[in-house]
Amino acid sequence: MSTTMSSLSANDDCLGWAARDASGVLSPYNFSRRAVGSDDVSIKITHCGVCYGDVVWTRNKHGDSMYPVVPGHEIAGIVKDVGSNVHHFKVGDHVGVGTYVNSCRDCEYCNDGLEVHCVKELVYTFNRMDVDGTITKGGYSSYIVVHERYCFRIPDNYPLASAAPLLCAGITVYAPMVRHKMNQPGKSLGVIGLGGLGHMAVKFGKAFGLNVTIFSTSLSKKQEALTLLGADRFIVSTDQEQIEALAKSFDFIIDTASGVHSLDPYISLLKTAGVLVLVGFPSEAKFSPAILNLGMKTISGSVVGGTKVTQEMIDFCATHKIYPNIEVIPIQYANEALERLIKKDVKYRFVIDIENSLK
Amino acid sequence: MSTTMSSLSANDDCLGWAARDASGVLSPYNFSRRAVGSDDVSIKITHCGVCYGDVVWTRNKHGDSMYPVVPGHEIAGIVKDVGSNVHHFKVGDHVGVGTYVNSCRDCEYCNDGLEVHCVKELVYTFNRMDVDGTITKGGYSSYIVVHERYCFRIPDNYPLASAAPLLCAGITVYAPMVRHKMNQPGKSLGVIGLGGLGHMAVKFGKAFGLNVTIFSTSLSKKQEALTLLGADRFIVSTDQEQIEALAKSFDFIIDTASGVHSLDPYISLLKTAGVLVLVGFPSEAKFSPAILNLGMKTISGSVVGGTKVTQEMIDFCATHKIYPNIEVIPIQYANEALERLIKKDVKYRFVIDIENSLK
Repeated sequence: MSTTMSSLSANDDCLGWAARDASGVLSPYNFSRRAVGSDDVSIKITHCGVCYGDVVWTRNKHGDSMYPVVPGHEIAGIVKDVGSNVHHFKVGDHVGVGTYVNSCRDCEYCNDGLEVHCVKELVYTFNRMDVDGTITKGGYSSYIVVHERYCFRIPDNYPLASAAPLLCAGITVYAPMVRHKMNQPGKSLGVIGLGGLGHMAVKFGKAFGLNVTIFSTSLSKKQEALTLLGADRFIVSTDQEQIEALAKSFDFIIDTASGVHSLDPYISLLKTAGVLVLVGFPSEAKFSPAILNLGMKTISGSVVGGTKVTQEMIDFCATHKIYPNIEVIPIQYANEALERLIKKDVKYRFVIDIENSLK
Repeated sequence: MSTTMSSLSANDDCLGWAARDASGVLSPYNFSRRAVGSDDVSIKITHCGVCYGDVVWTRNKHGDSMYPVVPGHEIAGIVKDVGSNVHHFKVGDHVGVGTYVNSCRDCEYCNDGLEVHCVKELVYTFNRMDVDGTITKGGYSSYIVVHERYCFRIPDNYPLASAAPLLCAGITVYAPMVRHKMNQPGKSLGVIGLGGLGHMAVKFGKAFGLNVTIFSTSLSKKQEALTLLGADRFIVSTDQEQIEALAKSFDFIIDTASGVHSLDPYISLLKTAGVLVLVGFPSEAKFSPAILNLGMKTISGSVVGGTKVTQEMIDFCATHKIYPNIEVIPIQYANEALERLIKKDVKYRFVIDIENSLK
């Protein structure tokens, strides 16, 4: 059935940009999307955020890339078609798609709105085999067909360009912040790393009424962090003295850094029973159990979020007028954007203007 | 005032065994205890458990030993005198003293019964400077004087010899098990290491109705673990194949091992949102954030417990007839016992019969 549908729509009418090999260089690529199934939504993509995951799989960093790779999992757009059984969306609706587009919809995690932890068959938005045997292709493309369950409603008054980064960067920090009760006004939050994820953590922290301190390697980001992002304090991560002076003063720390670094200085910053959340993916992490144990502290990992908390996060952003700081670029700038992303030269998220540049 | 009291009682009537230097060799040593203050309880020590902490400070492993060191922080005995203001104990009561004997009694943690996390002046039971300037001396001695707040009631029907190991080994595993809700019948628990702490974790796990799997380096402990301790499964920690077969099957793991070991194999054993509690003190711990993040798993440290949960644990043991498996020894065997403890040659806790051997 799926194969039939697939062949029916095999007209290569979807225009994307793909990497052909581990060089990761992106160039135009025409391909097919599946026909719109009864539960599917077809979305005209207007914007796609640029995430470090796009670098990982276009350059085969994990050794599991299936070329051609069309990256992009921070997708925002407008519904252009819906299947006969679609209940939640209609043509013209503004919607988003994040890091996954399928799951078993039957396990305890799916049933609990935690689809990203599906124990059977989570399908990522690109470079994964979907249940119909095709390899998923992401948001650096003109449209996408997704089961409505994995689409999110974006309020009409929320700009689509701003919505895109919420689907990965935003939910990656929002979900653990809520799960670990970081939304208690007056508590103190440390944010390690000031990129796409970190700057959203600062914004959520301030919206939750927290006292927010940024730990960043880039002193150059200080002024803007305090004024534009509204952080309460900015500390250069290499300033041991200043870090030691803050020992045991944080309720929570969220670590968005992806380079290998010792966790001890940050665990030491936590109060008794404090929580350090990791959302970055360094290859290894080290710490001294004594520091963790004596303060009954916690290190907890997290990855994006299920559909329930994702929709909640989008609505929270709309209600509280929280917008990512973005640099909007044309698709033709994507290769340079990925290079700049690697060099951390972005404030704070690139968003590709698919609608106006991908032709 | 304290100094005066101290000099008043400077009659060296307390007989202990002390280490004089980093050799750690213990031998008889006479010293003074402070006079019984208005809030103090004087306890005739009948038993003292042998904990790895005794090795650490008699041998100056942390470089902070203040000789002579009288070790011992798993103390059980009988009240022989009480101060005028003591409310909870009377002469003849059976009582225990654990790893700390003083705190500020004024900070948020003390006020919450979490004295072990006192932010001002937690005083350990031995080798620490007490508020009166004296160096605390532990339970390898004939009696001890302790503020009543740091004494625990031991039910009359609970053997004092069995009570001793509860005060460190018991509470060290009980407190995090309760804090992390490991007392839900039907959940699965892994216990890493089968020493004093590990064997208590198995007993608590079974009392809580959990399915308990032991991970131990010593195959020789298998039969007894299954029959005597009642564990459901015993796995040799080096058996990679068997460990991999259990991937994502545990709700909780409590790690009592003190040698450096990778946490990855154990994190992999946890279900989504599973919790790994560390109570051992290896010098370093390593893990791969990806494994933690993708399953939103947690690593949490813990150290003994406050007075509230300690009393609760003792009462729980009495109610459920949970007794540590002990090897009762005379004080004259203490040096050999410490050697055997280092070699992990004990099932599962040495308890010194102070009453009958220390003369």
